Amino acid sequence: MKRRSALAIAVATLASVCAYLLTASGHADEKSAPAYVTEMPAGYRDWKVVSVAHEAGKLNSIGFVLGNDIAIKAYREGKLPFPDGAIIAAVHYSHVPSDENNKAFGDKQSFVPGVATNIQFEVKDSKKYAATGGWGFGHFSANGKPADATFMQTCFPCHKPAAATDLIYTHYAP
Amino acid sequence: MKRRSALAIAVATLASVCAYLLTASGHADEKSAPAYVTEMPAGYRDWKVVSVAHEAGKLNSIGFVLGNDIAIKAYREGKLPFPDGAIIAAVHYSHVPSDENNKAFGDKQSFVPGVATNIQFEVKDSKKYAATGGWGFGHFSANGKPADATFMQTCFPCHKPAAATDLIYTHYAP
Repeated sequence: MKRRSALAIAVATLASVCAYLLTASGHADEKSAPAYVTEMPAGYRDWKVVSVAHEAGKLNSIGFVLGNDIAIKAYREGKLPFPDGAIIAAVHYSHVPSDENNKAFGDKQSFVPGVATNIQFEVKDSKKYAATGGWGFGHFSANGKPADATFMQTCFPCHKPAAATDLIYTHYAP
Repeated sequence: MKRRSALAIAVATLASVCAYLLTASGHADEKSAPAYVTEMPAGYRDWKVVSVAHEAGKLNSIGFVLGNDIAIKAYREGKLPFPDGAIIAAVHYSHVPSDENNKAFGDKQSFVPGVATNIQFEVKDSKKYAATGGWGFGHFSANGKPADATFMQTCFPCHKPAAATDLIYTHYAP
């Protein structure tokens, strides 16, 4: 872990230096900051299902993960890394009990989506998002407002441990 | 409840008598048994998402609910009852912890689909399935084997309390 941390610091330092040099040499400032997704991809609610997930604890979330046709094809063929153009969307809601379902089951067991909480995207573009493993990350509140740059810096480090599956945690549910 | 039970028994008795008379008068036996879905609708895994659900307790299930284009259109337009041709599929898996996700979150909070358990369908055909509220119910094990007639008799009674939403419990997750 220490060696990896040292390497990470070295890489980060090098990246910062490079970014500074690029800016100083007249390149646009935007090259120094990792790019992320600031507009929700159109039509995502019509995409096919990759899987679902339930996050207990503080998140208390239930949601579904969708993929555009390029992403779904790659998932089904087990193709890694995902090709450019693949987009994965995670649509999250609060995890709430369903009184209606519980009555039908005769037991307090059923949980369904409550209020919409956020929508997250991963957009594969190996050139545009080269600094973050080829994926552009996006996080939007339920009303479509994108998260700020500080928040967005947390996405890539959290996905890095999933390197074996091209930084994607969600597996396809057959 | 007592009045409803008495009514239910009366209706069931009447139905049995009618079924007997139909059989006795030369009609096919199949008319006496409620029809249900015995073949999985093709292509359902490509349909759009209606919602997701988590059943705790004995079921210990997580899954997604899909709709064909007719069903999704009706859901989005709030159109009830669902028109003939609408099909809704509920794809269920065991609800298992994800060690991989938990490591990333740093907490034991994440649950994902484990083994596929069953797939349930509701097919709207107001004539064919008139005896069960216009819906043909289907239940298949993960390997595609349909449930037997005894099991299938439990579907309609359980869905009857959802009369206000045309016997469908799952609400559309926007």
